[in-house]
Amino acid sequence: MAVPLIDPRDLDFALWRVLDAEQLTRYARFADHGRETFDAVIETARRIAEEKFRPHAAKSDANEPYLENGKVVLIPEIGEAVRAFAEAGFMAAHHDTERGGMQLPWTIQQAAFAHFKAANVPTAGYPFLTIAAANLIHAHGSEEQQRLWMQPMLEGRFFGTMALSEPHAGSSLSDVRTVARRLDDGTYAIKGSKMWTSGGEHEISQNIVHMTLARIEGAPAGVKGLSLFIVPRYRLDETGNPSVPNDVRLIGLNHKMGYRGTVNTALSFGEEDGCIGWIVGAPNRGLLQMFHMMNEARVGVAFGAIMLAYQGYLESLAYARERPQGRHPGDKDPTTPQLALIEHADVRRMLLQQKAVAEGGLMLALDLALRIDRSTHDPDPQVRKRESLLLDFLTPIIKAWFSDQSLVANHNALQIFGGYGYTRDFPVERIYRDNRLNPIHEGTNAIQAIDLLGRKASIHDGAAFAAVVEAIDATLAEAAGIAEVKLIRDATKEARDRLVETTDALMKDSTRIGPIRLLANAEAYMDLAGLTVFGWIWTRQAIEAAAMLKAGQDPDFARGKLAAARYAARWELPRSEQRATLLQSLDATLVDVQDSWF
Amino acid sequence: MAVPLIDPRDLDFALWRVLDAEQLTRYARFADHGRETFDAVIETARRIAEEKFRPHAAKSDANEPYLENGKVVLIPEIGEAVRAFAEAGFMAAHHDTERGGMQLPWTIQQAAFAHFKAANVPTAGYPFLTIAAANLIHAHGSEEQQRLWMQPMLEGRFFGTMALSEPHAGSSLSDVRTVARRLDDGTYAIKGSKMWTSGGEHEISQNIVHMTLARIEGAPAGVKGLSLFIVPRYRLDETGNPSVPNDVRLIGLNHKMGYRGTVNTALSFGEEDGCIGWIVGAPNRGLLQMFHMMNEARVGVAFGAIMLAYQGYLESLAYARERPQGRHPGDKDPTTPQLALIEHADVRRMLLQQKAVAEGGLMLALDLALRIDRSTHDPDPQVRKRESLLLDFLTPIIKAWFSDQSLVANHNALQIFGGYGYTRDFPVERIYRDNRLNPIHEGTNAIQAIDLLGRKASIHDGAAFAAVVEAIDATLAEAAGIAEVKLIRDATKEARDRLVETTDALMKDSTRIGPIRLLANAEAYMDLAGLTVFGWIWTRQAIEAAAMLKAGQDPDFARGKLAAARYAARWELPRSEQRATLLQSLDATLVDVQDSWF
Repeated sequence: MAVPLIDPRDLDFALWRVLDAEQLTRYARFADHGRETFDAVIETARRIAEEKFRPHAAKSDANEPYLENGKVVLIPEIGEAVRAFAEAGFMAAHHDTERGGMQLPWTIQQAAFAHFKAANVPTAGYPFLTIAAANLIHAHGSEEQQRLWMQPMLEGRFFGTMALSEPHAGSSLSDVRTVARRLDDGTYAIKGSKMWTSGGEHEISQNIVHMTLARIEGAPAGVKGLSLFIVPRYRLDETGNPSVPNDVRLIGLNHKMGYRGTVNTALSFGEEDGCIGWIVGAPNRGLLQMFHMMNEARVGVAFGAIMLAYQGYLESLAYARERPQGRHPGDKDPTTPQLALIEHADVRRMLLQQKAVAEGGLMLALDLALRIDRSTHDPDPQVRKRESLLLDFLTPIIKAWFSDQSLVANHNALQIFGGYGYTRDFPVERIYRDNRLNPIHEGTNAIQAIDLLGRKASIHDGAAFAAVVEAIDATLAEAAGIAEVKLIRDATKEARDRLVETTDALMKDSTRIGPIRLLANAEAYMDLAGLTVFGWIWTRQAIEAAAMLKAGQDPDFARGKLAAARYAARWELPRSEQRATLLQSLDATLVDVQDSWF
Repeated sequence: MAVPLIDPRDLDFALWRVLDAEQLTRYARFADHGRETFDAVIETARRIAEEKFRPHAAKSDANEPYLENGKVVLIPEIGEAVRAFAEAGFMAAHHDTERGGMQLPWTIQQAAFAHFKAANVPTAGYPFLTIAAANLIHAHGSEEQQRLWMQPMLEGRFFGTMALSEPHAGSSLSDVRTVARRLDDGTYAIKGSKMWTSGGEHEISQNIVHMTLARIEGAPAGVKGLSLFIVPRYRLDETGNPSVPNDVRLIGLNHKMGYRGTVNTALSFGEEDGCIGWIVGAPNRGLLQMFHMMNEARVGVAFGAIMLAYQGYLESLAYARERPQGRHPGDKDPTTPQLALIEHADVRRMLLQQKAVAEGGLMLALDLALRIDRSTHDPDPQVRKRESLLLDFLTPIIKAWFSDQSLVANHNALQIFGGYGYTRDFPVERIYRDNRLNPIHEGTNAIQAIDLLGRKASIHDGAAFAAVVEAIDATLAEAAGIAEVKLIRDATKEARDRLVETTDALMKDSTRIGPIRLLANAEAYMDLAGLTVFGWIWTRQAIEAAAMLKAGQDPDFARGKLAAARYAARWELPRSEQRATLLQSLDATLVDVQDSWF
């Protein structure tokens, strides 16, 4: 029997108990909704994910996209799945009802979408990129652009992509070379090469809208000279339907280790000088406009990583329960039946690690979604400000720390399956390969760490950092005195103190030591901050679990939560000490080592 | 240009400088050899590995073995490579000259073979399994068995396999069910199913000799009832040539995530009651006989993992030097040229981690090979005893700790390549997939950890552990007072003290707490011991590097060694504290958690 996509008890626990997402219905925008409509949306997503997304995940991996007569061929199930997604209204889920949307909170949409990520993250890439592209036009495009390009995306007729990276500039957007020449009619002639464009070409939508970063002729060098353009595969006729090709040429497909269902392309724009782009917003504002979307995309990448961790966890848990292997140490009587794998301590360690990352990550991803809703819709500007500050600091952490730890989780899932896990007969090796992308794309994890320490730790005079510490302290105060929570509370308090002390010390020293030395050990800072946040979310879960235990509600479930919190406190959080020591010593190993020494 | 398989400076450094392997020529068995013949053998291996093994590594991965008309089809390059290997005399390299061998020390053979592992570990699997099977017959088989089965293996005509695991018993050999019924002529009728047999069927050798564990009818349950059999694919005619099939049937091929060139099979023995086996040695001694081979195989697995780490390191180092991307933090002038990746601190961190694991691992693997030579050939029984004790304790560590850390190294290699690393256009994703097997096979890493803490830490009244500590202390004494070595020496001393303190505490408590609690946190013990050994080998390398610096020899190389030692001291070894604390607290998280809580 297939495992669930998400443990429904856990989703309910995170959404309604820990996060109290029902509070969203107090906002005017969501007043027509209630817990019932939210649950119904999530259930619909779960059903479509189960029926249309999950069944072809293995087939899609084994049959990666290929070219036939110049056309990209995907297995047909991918298009069918995305159509079912769009027909259920999910493309427009958070948009206004008058636009055909459901006016859903971002939180609920994300809780629903988590099921598609768990079921088949490569297929889910098509709608999620489209939603992100539509959001970008919604935020910065003109009314006409919204009508012509966004509306067909919300209806699932056009798909969207992000055309940012170039062959020579993956991480360094500053070096983007694609140029845009202004034409007399106000459109732009686009010319250049793009690399790594996911969903860049296929035949499952009527049109593909590339949200493209390019540099207008004469614009400044670097990121300050980038503008954002709508560059469609096909131009539109007067009725808004795709007509002639727009000189966007597919150069080749990238053949990946995993994540294969999402076709990944190298594209060339304007080889025959016939590629037109429409500028979105003002010139030279491209990166700024992208930033909003990039944060969303970063949380999205993390959410995908976490759901892969979650699937690996549930798969390996089911296997650990059913597979007999070995006996307890000391019990060498070979005539006794073998124990189930789950009886072995180290298998439990690997299950607890997965549970802590997967369930903790799910809660954090939903927590951030809730903060996005609050930062947008709360009537109190103070609340909006605070939530936005929290998002600033927490986004690189969920992207980097959780994608790294999710990969460790998938490593553990595979390990529990033993030799079988290494074969393609079980899904964990595919999940592991899919997940290996997540520490790379949407800004490598090293870039996230530099963003965290070099920018987020100090922006707004340290207000983002202070907001996070304040939120953690509120949780620690709430946890004080609850016996079952003491272990994780104390470990989190220690990690929090180390993070604060380290951040203070580094910020004080930053001018003296300069940015190179400050940021040399950014990876250790990311781990220190990630561990602290990990402790925070597990303290929050433990508080609720303790309350459930006290009330006699589902004690097994509650004890499982406390066990995961205990695992986090004993096995993971103590690492924060080593990290803080390294950082505070301003260790210069990485600065001093020279190229010629390798 | 292709990177080298191994940095030749580093191999020379480890073999001749740190380990002083030339001392082997003092043993009577190796008296005819000298540094020149050793170097020549290594150079021959390097050349064949470059010319015959490396070129088809990617092709072999993309074209995994398949069945056609009931026959296993491998790409032809695999057979050609193994033939070149055999023709160079490597199948018999360490055997007596009168058997057609080179009478090479194991150390030199391993240094030579490291090149095949670096070039193409799946293809190298065929000769290495054959060598291991031959060693088993050499150690325990009769003269006739050596003539009939071993000799053709040394000539490369027959290949060998290890047929241990069964579909229901991967880790738990205690539960092996294959039965052997004694026939009147002293042979045995074999019946049962084997799983995961590497090299189990193919057409690139005249015969395949399965070294098979089975239970003689009426033998005790458990490992004490296992016997070792020679079960060939084809029986032999009177001239010793393969004749009729021996009722060994191929049930299917396992389709793996990586390591694809090594065909992996499910086999059925005696479905038609026509499978004959020849017992090796006495009945019920099978596992004992296997043990010798398993230790060799475990070091072999680790060596393979380490060479994959080494290749990933050299590949990503070359890429980091040539790929421009981004600028220093703080240097935002986009009109300046981009820096090479290697200029970024976090890339250096990932390179140093790889260097520390790859070069440190290579040295340790050769160190263990040297101890095998000494434990076999040293005239002093005290030396033989001591080396054998050291091998007992260090074998699970090199298998588990180094295969885990080698995978981290490959993760870092892939990460340095960014999006390109995730594609199949570069070798690192293949290397990473190949390496993912190593924490699983030849005893999962959890089993190694249980072996280390549950057995090796206490065997011979703690003499194995004491021998390791004594060896470490000798290094620490040697390092005292050398300024350049202080950092790694002190960190190693701390880790060593934590390891000793923890081991003492656990051994003292072991009877009281019982084996389940003692071994629950074995993974943490493995990490603590692994870190200590990691510190030890880097202290040894640092001592030699400091001497080179002093003598003005290759200062860049020496500084690189000191930088890797510094990385180990600052970034890795401090983790030993957290591990010791967890272990000494007898943390019961993994014991207390219940199946129903998940």
